[in-house]
Parts: sequence; structure tokens; C-alpha cells
Amino acid sequence: MVAGRCYHHPLQHGRGGRLVVEIDIDQPRLSDELEHLAGLSDAPAPAVTRVLYSDTDLAARAYLKGLLAGTGLRLREDALGNTFARWEGCEPGLPAVASGSHIDAVPHSGRFDGTVGVLGALEAIRALQAAGFSPGRPIELILFTSEEPTRFGLGCIGSRAMAGAVTPPQLRRLEDEEGRNLDEVRRQAGFRGDLEDVRLPKGHYHAFVELHIEQGPLLEREGVSIGVVEAIAAPTTLHVKLRGEGGHAGTVLMSERRDALLAGTRIAQAVEEAARGTGSGNSIATVGIFDVHPRAANSIPSEVFLTVDARDTELARRDTMVVAIRAAIAAEEARGVATEVEVINADPPVICDAEVIQAITAAAEEAGFWTRPLFGRAYHDALFMAQLCPSGMIFIPCRGGVSHRPDEYAEPEAIAAGVRVLARTLARLATT
Amino acid sequence: MVAGRCYHHPLQHGRGGRLVVEIDIDQPRLSDELEHLAGLSDAPAPAVTRVLYSDTDLAARAYLKGLLAGTGLRLREDALGNTFARWEGCEPGLPAVASGSHIDAVPHSGRFDGTVGVLGALEAIRALQAAGFSPGRPIELILFTSEEPTRFGLGCIGSRAMAGAVTPPQLRRLEDEEGRNLDEVRRQAGFRGDLEDVRLPKGHYHAFVELHIEQGPLLEREGVSIGVVEAIAAPTTLHVKLRGEGGHAGTVLMSERRDALLAGTRIAQAVEEAARGTGSGNSIATVGIFDVHPRAANSIPSEVFLTVDARDTELARRDTMVVAIRAAIAAEEARGVATEVEVINADPPVICDAEVIQAITAAAEEAGFWTRPLFGRAYHDALFMAQLCPSGMIFIPCRGGVSHRPDEYAEPEAIAAGVRVLARTLARLATT
Repeated sequence: MVAGRCYHHPLQHGRGGRLVVEIDIDQPRLSDELEHLAGLSDAPAPAVTRVLYSDTDLAARAYLKGLLAGTGLRLREDALGNTFARWEGCEPGLPAVASGSHIDAVPHSGRFDGTVGVLGALEAIRALQAAGFSPGRPIELILFTSEEPTRFGLGCIGSRAMAGAVTPPQLRRLEDEEGRNLDEVRRQAGFRGDLEDVRLPKGHYHAFVELHIEQGPLLEREGVSIGVVEAIAAPTTLHVKLRGEGGHAGTVLMSERRDALLAGTRIAQAVEEAARGTGSGNSIATVGIFDVHPRAANSIPSEVFLTVDARDTELARRDTMVVAIRAAIAAEEARGVATEVEVINADPPVICDAEVIQAITAAAEEAGFWTRPLFGRAYHDALFMAQLCPSGMIFIPCRGGVSHRPDEYAEPEAIAAGVRVLARTLARLATT
Repeated sequence: MVAGRCYHHPLQHGRGGRLVVEIDIDQPRLSDELEHLAGLSDAPAPAVTRVLYSDTDLAARAYLKGLLAGTGLRLREDALGNTFARWEGCEPGLPAVASGSHIDAVPHSGRFDGTVGVLGALEAIRALQAAGFSPGRPIELILFTSEEPTRFGLGCIGSRAMAGAVTPPQLRRLEDEEGRNLDEVRRQAGFRGDLEDVRLPKGHYHAFVELHIEQGPLLEREGVSIGVVEAIAAPTTLHVKLRGEGGHAGTVLMSERRDALLAGTRIAQAVEEAARGTGSGNSIATVGIFDVHPRAANSIPSEVFLTVDARDTELARRDTMVVAIRAAIAAEEARGVATEVEVINADPPVICDAEVIQAITAAAEEAGFWTRPLFGRAYHDALFMAQLCPSGMIFIPCRGGVSHRPDEYAEPEAIAAGVRVLARTLARLATT
């Protein structure tokens, strides 16, 4: 603790950094806010669709900014729409402790993925404020732009750009399916700053903690309230284009065909085999998009576009999968189907920071919750924040481990438990 | 020949019904009209997209009606938009000889499929008029509504309804992908008649002949100008819905998945195997549509909709294929994927009428062209006209046998040869 300049509530911390002020989470308020945010959707409830820079995304951002206006935090938006709300500490020159997540939602998904980490961080800050807590370091809430790859095929655009893992020229080349350029679309959405200013220097933050639903079944199955993430398994994403030969489905004999759809089905099956073939249950791979052209019942498919998403907690095993998948794609060339593979991302897995893990574990213990170590298997902004500062994640259980579906669900009590632990973690990390 | 009442050009027919008047095809005019029609498209040239009741379809119909206005033929449209242009014979009470085809085009296809049979019939009639030919029976040009199944998933809607192979209540139940009802859409397109009046009685026509590109490679390969169709292989079309379980592509382990896309890929491969497995090159089967939901790179596909199109010149062999395909679909149930199969059509193959075949063969011989017998492997309106009257088809070569693609191509001379044979065939059949 740096002495002197900073006023701390006399009873704020006890032995071992224990936070002795009471932390009251306003659970009904948080549930109401999650409910309201879920209603800002382009799919009918309970499904949620909220795509980057859509009117719905902008409405959700406006809603969040309205809530933030009540906290006295200082707002900043960067050129991509990453949004920062800063609670100045009593030692303002110090790097902030940050927490946050995303509010974009893949088509027809649920209401808790990402949003729990944004509204939860807001509630944690409000609870600390209400408790009279006075932070040493600043505490900053971050709303990350486009964690989901829906619109531009690239996940974590916001945090990736903050970490410099995608450059402004690369960002300017991104196009959505309608051929609209990211740079043009973000300006139309009102984010007119300089893309060069998005990147932050290493050490800009003291630490980062992200609260998130597990999106897996372990916490629920074992009755544990808090998952302490030890490592995050980053995916490799491939975009695969296949070009065979079209024709009339009634007149071209089987022996004369070069059917792009059949090539795609063989690749999709090879993707499944590659994941099952590593011998580890931690290897997973998915074909999520499979577009056929010309898409007519009586036309032989001439072109297919498909995506491959391969993940593992071990980089070497993930690479083994990707090699097998690429071999299956190459085999289609021999059958007369032209192939094109683009690697959209191949970020390394991240090992979470030991001190952040320790802060989360201590905070959970202090709040009276069981914890267990976990792997993060989904993409998270923490993956890129880890390139900027010591980072970690808090997972809470969700029903059946289900996510990216309309029936995604987390109990209000489970969310409140996560927010309690997040608040205490932020308080620990913000104490100088 | 019925004697007396009808004036025939004295030199109109010679020995054996031979047409002795000269038949002049205006080949440049026909090429120009095909070119103009191709420009009425919702896809950039050379691709053609012309979907039933779209503005583009209506513009193409208006163009054709403009051309017909110059011929003095009497126009009629039915409640579906089937369009009839009648050249009254000198014995008006007799059933007409009909010829025609369709002008709708599947997405991103070519400019000759169907249109050659419509504009070619028009040119044949104009050539007969110009030659001073005087028909005994009426000659009627028919533009059939929606031979392609693009919009409502059902092919040959117009001719099928004329033959009573689809009933008005069934027609009223048809919906397009936007959930728009055929009955509503056809009214908006200006076809407000009574659907009950579309069906025609058996014997309404004396005969039907359809001119069409081969959509296969045989005529070109063998250097034969005229294919005389002996049988038409009708398809069975299935609509297959698969429902598995969605979820986050990063968090649901492989062993816990019920991936609808993988189920669909196994079915698509079974479709290919079923066609190859009959041991006959005449067995063909295609998956042309394969839609994935929710269609996100990082979501496990929960639903798939796919189409199966299976064709054979022999009904029993086609049924064998369908049984194998249905078994593969049923096998997915055992893997926990719910399946739903709808049989959209399963029309029997048609054997063409011997007298019509004879008229075509004689006409081709008279015009100096080689012929060969062929099977029709695509859907054609002749399939349903055959339920109303003796029917046949004239095929002309197309480059590489290619169809339903932007590079579909037929030589102007090949088209003109087909029109010459069609004109003489109509003259023979119209002579009482």
C-alpha cells in the first residue's frame, strides 16, 4: 500500500486485505437491467440477436450509457466504439483496474453471454460506491466492441485492436457480407475517432477481470458458485471457399459432377473427425456456416462457403486438428473442386495471471463461496486484455451449460454471487 | 383429313403430308428477342434470375405479350398466369395443337432454358404465317407459369394445375420462404381469375410439342441437330428438416453434441451413394439447398433444411433410391436428431406419344436434319401436358450439356434448326 496521499475508509480493509465494508448487490435492479437489455434484440424473445453497429446495438449502447450517467463515472468512447467508464481513484496517476465484457449477441442466442460481465461490472461499482469504498487505483468499466465474429467474421474486434493484435490497416480491410466496410460502418454508427488511437500501451491497465457465464456444464453439475479461470482456449477460425461445377440437377450424370456441396460435406465430417481424433475431450471443432450457391432444389451446387472453428486448451493439439482439416480441404482439389482457405484468427491460448487468480480466489472465500479452477473454452476479450495487463476471469454457472441459444439461463442468485466476488476482487486489486 | 370446310393453300402439303411451302425462320430477330428477354433478370449478365411473380417475371411477360400483339393471335391468361395465344384454324371447333414452355429462371442460371421453347414457338408461328400456311386445327402458344420450383418449392405449377395434378386447395396452401401465400401473391401480380378455372379437360388439346435445349451433352457430342424425346424422367423431390441441439461452438464438447449440420452432411452423402448404388448411369440425385440455422461461425448448428431431387427414367429404380435416402434420414433419429420429410412431388415418368414422335421425326427429315432418340432428364411442362393430350418434345444441343448456369449456351443456328422442325411439326399436327 502506498502511504499518505490516499484517504481510505478506516475500516475498509482488515487483515490480509480483507474488505470489511458490507457489499450489497441490488439483485432485482440487476435482473431488471438484464431483462431490459434482452429486449433490445432483432429476434423475438427469448432469442437475442444484436449485431455490431446495428440500430439495436446502438440502442443497447445508449441504454448502458444512460445507466452509467447515474454513477458519476467519466465516459470515453474510442474509434471502434469500445466504451470506458472510469471511477477515478484517489491516486489518479496510477493504471486502472478494469472489468467488462460485451453486449453484442450472435443471431438467435441468449441474454446472459457478455451482458452479465458488463451490467455485473456496473453493479459491482455501484455496490462499492454505496458501501463507501474509496479505490486507490482508478476502476474502469469497459464495454468491448464486437466480441462475437457475426458481422465481420473476426471475434473480439475491440479488445484485439486495443491490444494491437489487429492493426488499423487490417481493420479498414474488414467487410461484412453485404460488402460494407468496417471503417465506413463504424463512422455511420457515430464512432468517428482515429483508428490509430484505439491501441493502448502495455501497462495502461494494472489488471483486468471479466465476469462471464461458464457456457459449460461443470459448475452447475458440481454445485460450485464460482469458477476461477486458469487458462483460455483460443480458437483457430478458417474461412473455406469451394468452387466446383454447377448445372441442372436433372441432366448432369453423377459421374460427370464436381459438386461443391458434396465436397463441403466431406470437409465438415473431417472437421468432426479431427476433433475426435486427438484423443482429448478438450479438442473441439465446428462448422457453423455452410452457404450453398446457387441454392436451388434443381441446381447442382457450384460453390460453398463454410467456416471452421477449432479450439483446444493446448496449442499443439489445436495445431494437429488444423493440419488434419487442411489435409481434408486439400483432398478436394484432387476431386476437381477448387479450394481457398483464409485463416481468420489463430490466437494462442492464454494462461491467466497468478495474482489475479489469487485475488479472485480470496474474494470468493471472503464472500463465502466455493470455487473451482476451470478452463475457458470460448473466445473472451480477456484473451486480448491479457496481452496488455495481468488478466483473469470469474465464471458463474449457467443452466445445462447452454449458451448461444435462446434458452441460455443463469439464476439471479448465481449472477449476484458473481458480482459480489467481482466487487471484492476489484476492491482488492484497486487497493494500492 | 376432314374434307371440305377448310381452305388449304393448294401447294401446302405434298405426298405423305410433306409441307411444301418454304419456312423462313428470322434467326436474327429470334436472337435479338432471346437477348432482350435475358436482360430482364435479377442477376447481372450473363446470369439470369427470374422468379415467379417478381417484377422481373412480370416485365418478361409484358415483353412477350407485346411481341404476341403483332401476330394477331388471341390472348388469354388464367388465374395462375398461364398465358395462351391462339391462332384460330379454319376449323375452329377442333382441339388445338399447342406448343410452349416457360420463362422463369432459377437463381443465377442461363438464358435458354425454357425461353427457347416460348420464343421459338412464337417464331414458328410467325414463320408459318409468313409462309401463308393455313392451319386446319387451331395452333396455340402456351407460356407456362413457374416450371421451376424456385419460389414455392413445387415445379411446373402452371401445367400441373392445368392437368389437375395439383388442386386449387393445394395451390392455396403453397407458401414461399417469406411465408407469402401463392393465392395472395398471384392476385397482387394481377392474376385475379378463379383457380377452379385453371384445370383443362382431357382432350382440350389435340397434341402438345415442346422445344427445349437438351441440358445434357449427347446431341453436341454426336453432332446431331435434333433430339426426339421418347420418355421424360420425372423427379421425386423431398424437403427434409433436421433439428438437433445448438450451443456455443467453444464450450459444448464433441461427445455431447447433436449437430444438425453433421446429420445433414451424412444425408447428403447418402443421397450421392443412393444414385451411384443403383448401377445405372440414369439414376441421379442431388442436394441443392442446404440451409443452416443459426448460421454463425461460433454456434453449433441446431437446424438444417435440405432438398433432395432424385430422378430416373425407370420408376422402380427411382423408388429404390428414395428408399435408401429415407433410410439414411431415419438413421439420424437414432443419433438424437429429429427429422421431418415432406414429399413435394413424385410424379411418374412419361412415355412420349408415338404419333407426336412420328410427326417430329418426319418434320426433321423434311427439313434435312439428323435426329436421335433421347430421354428427357429434367422436369418439363410436357410431363403434365402428357396427362391432357398426346405430347412430345424436341431437343436441340447446348454447349457442353450445361444448363442452370450463367454459361448455358445454344448456337443461333441450333435454335433456328429446332424452330424449323417445330414449325413443320405443328403444321403436320394442325392439318386435319
